[in-house]
Amino acid sequence: MSWDQVWIDINIATMSPNISEPYGAIRDAALAVKDGKIAWIGKRCDLPEFDVLATPIYKGKNGWLTPGLIDAHTHLVFAGNRANEFELRLQGASYEEIARNGGGIISTVNACREADEAELFELGRQRLNALAKEGVTTVEIKSGYGLDIETELKILRVARELGKHHHVDVKTTFLGAHAIPPEYKNDSDAYVDLVINEMLPQVIAENLADAVDVFCENIAFSLAQTERVLTAAKNAGLDIKLHAEQLSNLGGSEMAAKLGAKSVDHIEYLDEDGVKALSESGTCATLLPGAFYFLRETQLPPIELLRQYKVPMVVASDYNPGSSPLCSSLLMLNMACTLMRLTPEEALAGMTRNAAKALGIEAEVGVLETGMTADFCLWNISTPAELSYTYGVGSCIEVVKNGRLVHQ
Amino acid sequence: MSWDQVWIDINIATMSPNISEPYGAIRDAALAVKDGKIAWIGKRCDLPEFDVLATPIYKGKNGWLTPGLIDAHTHLVFAGNRANEFELRLQGASYEEIARNGGGIISTVNACREADEAELFELGRQRLNALAKEGVTTVEIKSGYGLDIETELKILRVARELGKHHHVDVKTTFLGAHAIPPEYKNDSDAYVDLVINEMLPQVIAENLADAVDVFCENIAFSLAQTERVLTAAKNAGLDIKLHAEQLSNLGGSEMAAKLGAKSVDHIEYLDEDGVKALSESGTCATLLPGAFYFLRETQLPPIELLRQYKVPMVVASDYNPGSSPLCSSLLMLNMACTLMRLTPEEALAGMTRNAAKALGIEAEVGVLETGMTADFCLWNISTPAELSYTYGVGSCIEVVKNGRLVHQ
Ligand SMILES: [Zn+2]
Ligand SMILES: [Zn+2]
Repeated sequence: MSWDQVWIDINIATMSPNISEPYGAIRDAALAVKDGKIAWIGKRCDLPEFDVLATPIYKGKNGWLTPGLIDAHTHLVFAGNRANEFELRLQGASYEEIARNGGGIISTVNACREADEAELFELGRQRLNALAKEGVTTVEIKSGYGLDIETELKILRVARELGKHHHVDVKTTFLGAHAIPPEYKNDSDAYVDLVINEMLPQVIAENLADAVDVFCENIAFSLAQTERVLTAAKNAGLDIKLHAEQLSNLGGSEMAAKLGAKSVDHIEYLDEDGVKALSESGTCATLLPGAFYFLRETQLPPIELLRQYKVPMVVASDYNPGSSPLCSSLLMLNMACTLMRLTPEEALAGMTRNAAKALGIEAEVGVLETGMTADFCLWNISTPAELSYTYGVGSCIEVVKNGRLVHQ
Repeated sequence: MSWDQVWIDINIATMSPNISEPYGAIRDAALAVKDGKIAWIGKRCDLPEFDVLATPIYKGKNGWLTPGLIDAHTHLVFAGNRANEFELRLQGASYEEIARNGGGIISTVNACREADEAELFELGRQRLNALAKEGVTTVEIKSGYGLDIETELKILRVARELGKHHHVDVKTTFLGAHAIPPEYKNDSDAYVDLVINEMLPQVIAENLADAVDVFCENIAFSLAQTERVLTAAKNAGLDIKLHAEQLSNLGGSEMAAKLGAKSVDHIEYLDEDGVKALSESGTCATLLPGAFYFLRETQLPPIELLRQYKVPMVVASDYNPGSSPLCSSLLMLNMACTLMRLTPEEALAGMTRNAAKALGIEAEVGVLETGMTADFCLWNISTPAELSYTYGVGSCIEVVKNGRLVHQ
């Protein structure tokens, strides 16, 4: 056998559904990489002979390999700082006072409109580095803090650039329908027209987005408006997804599922009909424990129903300045277990196998199997559950992306 | 002036109560260090002349200096791994089943009894490194996972060794009365005798502890037993403190306050009489948001009463394998604000000025004033509230400990 690298002295949480062990685990395992792909994976004792002198051999000190983490829902390209608003609220200021002091999403929108691409790139790069150090190898980044053509395109361009200049793969999502901008506050339909008729065509022309997302909620876009945007995106051949059922049940998830959405995200108020619809369409349910924590929500997503109907559960950071300012994917594994009572295996599947499905890249990444892209991490842990159980002692030792060892 | 180093291009959150600005802030500031102490601090424009060629000058890029963080309540020297127990519980196992599978505190106790000092030291060192990277310059470490003479002493020796070999200062606390060991489960008074008559004298003989702590709770030690231990410790000249009122109100805080305790910790169930007692004795109230989060508690400590009676509030990680496995002091600032509704300024005071008071070292550290030890951090932030508001993008740029720049 002629390989580019071989890993031994490892256990592997393959996360493959084809291995019946929890975590698709292979103990005393080995893994070989060739041309950026996994060329061989299995028990060490079954490892075929190879040229041990010509092949770099990495020893994992009996730690665990997992697929590289995939954070399938972030808003990590933004400018501005909402620390002041956070402080005012804790000092007892009302939402009105905060708005008068320039707080809320509009402060982020204004900062993004003012920032140039270089500034947004540098901010995004620092955040991407933080996630990468924790083992993230693929991240989704949404626009939605521009709310005008120029700035929405600017954010998406920066997200694309980040993907080109960083080892972490970036999937981009156009979220022009994130909030109703002040310019359209009395005519949200006109803003939806703008999103569909002017923004979306330019996003497509420049190939800036892999998917389109909408915030479907009473305080944002109605079910009818959401359907218009998603239908236009679908007709243009883009993947679709949705922020839905976070604060109330508008039926957005069911509608999106029927349109073939890759995922519906938040879904605290999703009911059984909605869960059934997801199950029928193969739509993923994305849980965002960081926002649940930061907003001190009490309504949990319908985890038990999602299990019952075998809806793939995704766990993502939702990293954003307003409702989830915790820039850590790994911490979300703990929060998904602690706050939402996922098992550690469900949480890890939510940031690997199922996250890949939510981004439509499950044929390439998310599980460790022969033929898949060689994106994986080596962890200094004695059981995969440790990834969710504890946090902070930096247990990610090595990251391999597209078969190359990343130095960070 | 002849100084060892000068800092400019900085703002300073001195946390000094003698400066009326929030955070005791000085904008456009400068700070000079001499012989490990702060030799001068104030407005840059008031900085006296000094030999600019002979003095290292550090530029803070307009970031903020704060006192080095002080984590005044941790249990960070322990062996063993409770990930398995975490996983079992999330899979629906009962406490009985978990106990049968060797879970609970006793699993940590067994692992600590088996571990040698070198192993415990290495585990503690990794955790101390993680805290140090976040800007922690002083940490308290408790014993309490030995519950026999040999292991309690071993843990305290390791904690002392950590302090000698790491730039982070370590204050040690003897917590022999952490839980009733299985050997004494039918005779807890006999275990208390052992703690007082055999463990404590040896701890003192080897100078292994700066303070003594007890877990006063229905599931641990009674009020009378607690008083016996604390009184013995006080009579031996050690500082005293208490885990109290976490699950019920036994009156431990009031009793400890009357004995002059430095702090009472957890205190979710503390009532107004207890708060008054703390106020009268100058005892600190230590809030442990990590445990509050991880145990999904709903009973908040009496924050408003603590404010009203001006009891110094401390924020600490309580890092431990059972109830707070998040090894991050910085994250606790966010949790203190998000979950317990402290203001960012209260949270930061809880990990600087008030934490120093809880450890009896407020004459040396915890605020940045002339004459204090030069323990401080430079943060890449635009307002001190950012330390609590956001997490994860590694904003701690530099750490100075005893006047020396730490490279980490
Ligand atoms: Zn979101
Ligand atoms: Zn504790």
